[in-house]
Amino acid sequence: MTNSSSDRPRRPGEFELIARYFAPLAAGSPGAVGLTDDAGFVGLPAGQEMVVTTDAVIEGVHFRRADPVEKIGAKALRVNLSDLAAKGADPVGYLMVLCLPAWTDESWIRQFVQGLAKDQELFQVTLLGGDTTAISGPLVISITALGAIPVGAAIHRHGAKPGDLVFVSGTVGDAACGLSLLQAENPALGASESTLIERYLLPEPRLSLGRRLRGVATAALDVSDGLLADLNHIAEVSRVRITVEAPRLPLSAGYIRQNGGHIGARAHAATAGDDYEIAFTAPPEDRETIARLAAETGIAISEIGRVETGMGVLLIDAKGQPVPVERLGYVHF
Amino acid sequence: MTNSSSDRPRRPGEFELIARYFAPLAAGSPGAVGLTDDAGFVGLPAGQEMVVTTDAVIEGVHFRRADPVEKIGAKALRVNLSDLAAKGADPVGYLMVLCLPAWTDESWIRQFVQGLAKDQELFQVTLLGGDTTAISGPLVISITALGAIPVGAAIHRHGAKPGDLVFVSGTVGDAACGLSLLQAENPALGASESTLIERYLLPEPRLSLGRRLRGVATAALDVSDGLLADLNHIAEVSRVRITVEAPRLPLSAGYIRQNGGHIGARAHAATAGDDYEIAFTAPPEDRETIARLAAETGIAISEIGRVETGMGVLLIDAKGQPVPVERLGYVHF
Repeated sequence: MTNSSSDRPRRPGEFELIARYFAPLAAGSPGAVGLTDDAGFVGLPAGQEMVVTTDAVIEGVHFRRADPVEKIGAKALRVNLSDLAAKGADPVGYLMVLCLPAWTDESWIRQFVQGLAKDQELFQVTLLGGDTTAISGPLVISITALGAIPVGAAIHRHGAKPGDLVFVSGTVGDAACGLSLLQAENPALGASESTLIERYLLPEPRLSLGRRLRGVATAALDVSDGLLADLNHIAEVSRVRITVEAPRLPLSAGYIRQNGGHIGARAHAATAGDDYEIAFTAPPEDRETIARLAAETGIAISEIGRVETGMGVLLIDAKGQPVPVERLGYVHF
Repeated sequence: MTNSSSDRPRRPGEFELIARYFAPLAAGSPGAVGLTDDAGFVGLPAGQEMVVTTDAVIEGVHFRRADPVEKIGAKALRVNLSDLAAKGADPVGYLMVLCLPAWTDESWIRQFVQGLAKDQELFQVTLLGGDTTAISGPLVISITALGAIPVGAAIHRHGAKPGDLVFVSGTVGDAACGLSLLQAENPALGASESTLIERYLLPEPRLSLGRRLRGVATAALDVSDGLLADLNHIAEVSRVRITVEAPRLPLSAGYIRQNGGHIGARAHAATAGDDYEIAFTAPPEDRETIARLAAETGIAISEIGRVETGMGVLLIDAKGQPVPVERLGYVHF
């Protein structure tokens, strides 16, 4: 109400924007009531509970204004779906708060919504409600994702036990490497570099893997701040120590081409963040099950370490010696 | 990741903040898993569905940095609970994204959390999850509230029918008047002015009324943008015309003392917004039921108009003549 109208953006008003761009995102869900209700409605099948998670992405912190617009919205959705994946949940829908600076014109919003529409199709979710508001500051996209899971089947962080092994899906370090390439603004990028950049712009929520880890993983989370920082969360709440073997960290060919595969590059990959892979613990007797899950989902899973009594997280080299790291992961503030 | 650390605020890091201030807000809910999980879990009793709504408040738009800190967080929660109230839902819990500028130090966060803790007690909700992140810009609080309601019992906006009457709870115009008083920065405020200011700072979600309107109201919403603007939403999606009689608008003694009770003051109250009262429609045969609900809840309910065939919203004076208004309510952008 104290908002200034001095630099009005060139775009339709709030309600026209909702009708033209956001209501179609809600069309697949009767519970969204066409976004006419300021609230959405979701049922749950018997025996299921709802999993809820929220994460915001902010211009200049989690994405750059110059990033492809279609991918900005998709990334905001995907980082939330990634949290559902790590709990083993099936996504149901999402709510979105958009704080729009004056520079976001109608064309920007159109592309933003196109990215979300593609991802809704891909991940079978619909918009259930939202709020758009003007901001004199950076663009903020705050998403709350809802998922469903059989009661008691969720994978928590607190279940890791001494003797468990530590696994991670995919490869680590790529997204951070992609961001560095983007920031260097080198126009002559090859296919290998583009793949790294794509991993920064559009992380892949590991939903098919997550739901198959129910009953297998003793603890899980998605790698957002950095593998070591995130495993440290598991170590803290499970009251265990987690040791990660640097030589076993899964690095992509593109990452190695940029940074090499030496111990420093491995320590960097383990602390860089934004990977959105699933890191999890499981007992050794499930090794074969996990290998089968990798084959079935087509998602590589690497065994990278072990859970022991003690506390904290430790990165070791091929000789078992601790590898010093400056910090475990991204520090928010 | 591109975030600058040049103006680091004087407060603990993210994880210490969560443990010290936010985890206690989640203590009452086993489904929040002590905020250690990046996701919360909510069950639903058989025969109920979940109602989800999200609204953000932004410094300089929805609140002022100078507002009492305890009330900033409480207001962010309450505007979301107000949406649940208007649907007839019982609140269950909430998720919160906090985008913190550098000026929010530990003392600010302590007071902010104290306000939320009080309201959690009052409205019987707990924090289920959240995300805190730094922002180079205004403070943003984005909340998603979850409620439960028997399947099919929700009150939508699209159910108003010609012949229905129009009602509103409490009084309108007070919050906008309170904001004007705050902005005038007159230190010599009496009790009457303080009441108006309080209505701006701390709106009252009409939860007890909302759940009693199930099966009675044909359409409902909470008044946030302005009574006429919000009734216009009902008119649009119900495909009806709503006529509001200015002389019947409920104005508080404090409002009349500030603005008078003349037609211009009434038009202002009907378009000022931030009231968070429930406006609803119901058939004439429910007049007595509604009078009883008012008595039972202790919340005044005024009959202010009628639903007719046609479209749009119209404010009329005592002679039935249209009262011109500059705009129906607050324009977000």
